[in-house]
Amino acid sequence: MDRDFDAKLNEFKAYLKDMEYLNAAIAGLYWDSRTYIPRSGADYRGEVLGYLSAELYRKQTSQQMRDFLDFFSAQPDLDDVTRAMADRLRREYDRSVKIPEERYREYVVAVSAAEAAWEDAKRKADYALFAPHLEKLIAFNREFIGYWGGGKNGYDMLLDYYEPGAAVAQLDAVFGELRDAVVSLLDRIRQKPRPDDEFLKGIFPADAQEKFSKHVLEKMGYNFGAGRLDVSVHPFTITLGVGDVRITTGYDEHELRSALYSCIHEGGHAIYEQNIDPALAGTMLMTGASMGIHESQSRLYENLIGRSRAFWQYFYPEAQKAFPQLQGVPLEAFYRAVNTVQPSLIRTEADELTYSLHIIIRYELEKAIFDGGADAADLPHMWNARYKEYLGVEPKSDSEGILQDTHWSGGNFGYFPSYALGNLYGAQFLSAMKRDIPDLERRIAEGDFNSMNDWLKQHVHRHGAVYLPGELIRRVTGEPLAARYYTLYLNEKYADIYGL
Amino acid sequence: MDRDFDAKLNEFKAYLKDMEYLNAAIAGLYWDSRTYIPRSGADYRGEVLGYLSAELYRKQTSQQMRDFLDFFSAQPDLDDVTRAMADRLRREYDRSVKIPEERYREYVVAVSAAEAAWEDAKRKADYALFAPHLEKLIAFNREFIGYWGGGKNGYDMLLDYYEPGAAVAQLDAVFGELRDAVVSLLDRIRQKPRPDDEFLKGIFPADAQEKFSKHVLEKMGYNFGAGRLDVSVHPFTITLGVGDVRITTGYDEHELRSALYSCIHEGGHAIYEQNIDPALAGTMLMTGASMGIHESQSRLYENLIGRSRAFWQYFYPEAQKAFPQLQGVPLEAFYRAVNTVQPSLIRTEADELTYSLHIIIRYELEKAIFDGGADAADLPHMWNARYKEYLGVEPKSDSEGILQDTHWSGGNFGYFPSYALGNLYGAQFLSAMKRDIPDLERRIAEGDFNSMNDWLKQHVHRHGAVYLPGELIRRVTGEPLAARYYTLYLNEKYADIYGL
Repeated sequence: MDRDFDAKLNEFKAYLKDMEYLNAAIAGLYWDSRTYIPRSGADYRGEVLGYLSAELYRKQTSQQMRDFLDFFSAQPDLDDVTRAMADRLRREYDRSVKIPEERYREYVVAVSAAEAAWEDAKRKADYALFAPHLEKLIAFNREFIGYWGGGKNGYDMLLDYYEPGAAVAQLDAVFGELRDAVVSLLDRIRQKPRPDDEFLKGIFPADAQEKFSKHVLEKMGYNFGAGRLDVSVHPFTITLGVGDVRITTGYDEHELRSALYSCIHEGGHAIYEQNIDPALAGTMLMTGASMGIHESQSRLYENLIGRSRAFWQYFYPEAQKAFPQLQGVPLEAFYRAVNTVQPSLIRTEADELTYSLHIIIRYELEKAIFDGGADAADLPHMWNARYKEYLGVEPKSDSEGILQDTHWSGGNFGYFPSYALGNLYGAQFLSAMKRDIPDLERRIAEGDFNSMNDWLKQHVHRHGAVYLPGELIRRVTGEPLAARYYTLYLNEKYADIYGL
Repeated sequence: MDRDFDAKLNEFKAYLKDMEYLNAAIAGLYWDSRTYIPRSGADYRGEVLGYLSAELYRKQTSQQMRDFLDFFSAQPDLDDVTRAMADRLRREYDRSVKIPEERYREYVVAVSAAEAAWEDAKRKADYALFAPHLEKLIAFNREFIGYWGGGKNGYDMLLDYYEPGAAVAQLDAVFGELRDAVVSLLDRIRQKPRPDDEFLKGIFPADAQEKFSKHVLEKMGYNFGAGRLDVSVHPFTITLGVGDVRITTGYDEHELRSALYSCIHEGGHAIYEQNIDPALAGTMLMTGASMGIHESQSRLYENLIGRSRAFWQYFYPEAQKAFPQLQGVPLEAFYRAVNTVQPSLIRTEADELTYSLHIIIRYELEKAIFDGGADAADLPHMWNARYKEYLGVEPKSDSEGILQDTHWSGGNFGYFPSYALGNLYGAQFLSAMKRDIPDLERRIAEGDFNSMNDWLKQHVHRHGAVYLPGELIRRVTGEPLAARYYTLYLNEKYADIYGL
């Protein structure tokens, strides 16, 4: 009996190993497509990626996969890893095979058309060009929700894809608490003078930025022996296989913060991936627990740590050496400058405090679409009204409003909330970490990132996707997700900086 | 009937397109493995490449492939492309399936062990460490020759893999003629003073070399919009798919010639690949006609053109700007310096004239192994004796003798001759080209490489692997392969340079 089980498990793992090889091949070619590919090679590369993705999908939805899943579902007392492996692949299998093939093919075509229309609409600031496509993608997703069924309400089905277990009931509570806290903080900050950050503009040569970013990444724990930093239009992190997790950034020679903080952010994602237990190879679990948990790591490094006073106590002298403009600027002024709050229209340029409001607005709109029946035509008005209400700013055109993000044109409804969840998870993890390492700030100020990385590796990173997000946060922090760790952090931080 | 045929052809092409996608994926990941991969990623990348190669092999040797081949073999009056496609895949199919799977697996293991032993033996200059492995690979290849059968003599079966149609009867004739001509020229050159080439040593910064090499590549017709130049330990050219043919080099800051000429050489390979008709996608013929024809293009650009007076009449003023050391050196002195003849021990460092002798020695030894029964133990003595006889030099150790090349440790017997065949094909093509473009040299001296590239594209490049090498050389030059075009070229060139 046990021998049968072991044989079946080995067979399953060999099957999954092949899927991981396909994943790795896709990742390697995708990375190249975003960094080094020559212009003329892009179209054919698209075909190659299409072929490999179809092969992966075929394996993921095959009769053989179904047989494996049926076998393991029927086993009692599986260990954590085997259970997680079977559950994860079952979720993906169900999600895929429940959609009629023909409809899915039509959806892929519709997404492709929507992406092109969105680019055009954004360039021309003309929402009407995009609206019919968005309406179509919404209709497809409503149809898919019907296929998936399962008793959940509609938007929950979409959330669950990016954040297994996430649901409106929970997000309404935590996002509501977060929104109120941020809006209230913002009201008080608006009464105060804006810190000077003019010295962060000027000329910062790309090679000096690269050198300093690499230094920061290396020091904070990113392993360049198992990764690289390259240049791409949009920064990203990608795992090309065991021992190979790469990040990219882009240098703006007129702004010091953008590349540096994108490196720290992607570095957080990458350190997570680099620290997953390699023994999970062959289980499809050698990846982050969820989008939200992944964002918790990038945002923890970027904001909670990377915008802390302790972080700059350590790095600022070196930043001053790297960038002569900073030589007359005191540490405290620099610290305040990288923490400037300025409500704005564009999510990707938002400061730490207001960022969550951008996300909550998108969450509220997605909920209105899938649980409230809102249509494409209703959205720009809802968007603009909420920006006015929460952030006090109004888009002059839809390009800097509802057309700014690519996600909806790709059909990725339910994705946005992970960004804000990342903020909440991150603060909750940090609070637990500080219980175990009371002098964490002092250590960071001395350039000791090992304490932090070891803790994160031990409690979060090494587990990969073995635990669902809800289970992980409970195991690590002793309680379910709560907004108060993050709101407390925000209140303390901005009270100090702005003298509230 | 025709509709059946068309349907079958489309089905076959779709199948081959998938094989090409796998090829492209392998090429892309291989390129990365040789250029940018981080240290820790190499092992896993090896597994990914192993998986994709096995998938490709599976498709190449499947029952489905056999059915396609049987169908098309039975068709009368196929057009050139379809015939070539079916023939090429039939050759590969037969070659693969005739070897018992178990034996082939054992061979792969033996090759892997031989490669490791060769590295060790070369480092320690101890042939005895490698000899038993070499003996084993020889035995495997003799066994394979038995499986392939087909009435040819043994070495012909190996030659045919790299150079379809090549055979000892023909190579003995052309290589004999070439050997005698080179040895005789060398005897006369030895009587003359060696041209000064000291000015080619010094400090040539890598970035200046890269800039100049890129300029030369672009000017000679390599399309950077469909390619890249990067750095790797050993220079190579690789096609990652339609519109993406990349080359690599390595810069020696103490020597101007090595990177520059490796770029021109790889550029020749790459221009060939870039000019193949993209309509051949889906036929597996979008590649060079053979190793020898490929080498003919790289060596044509590198030597016949790239070491010509006309080439440097155009490029030398720019070389002088790029490398200040050259400013006092007359063009004629530079031209003589890049054409210095110096018999030496190492193939990859050989000059244009003596290079063929290195190849012919290897050809004679391979023939002795597979047609004459020579064993691993006999080879070092044979090697050294021939170096003495043809080149007048003797290895002080086997590291600079029989252990210098990696080919035999990889089991690649029959590969070497393509290098010398490339010289012969190249000169024969050039002779035909000059019939059509009598003022070719003047055009090159004026920086017009279009005339040459257009001619090569029209007559050679665009056809990819549609014609076998023997057929191609006949179509293009009106006669079968002959050694005299190359020997004539060598005699004229060196008589002029050395005043013979």
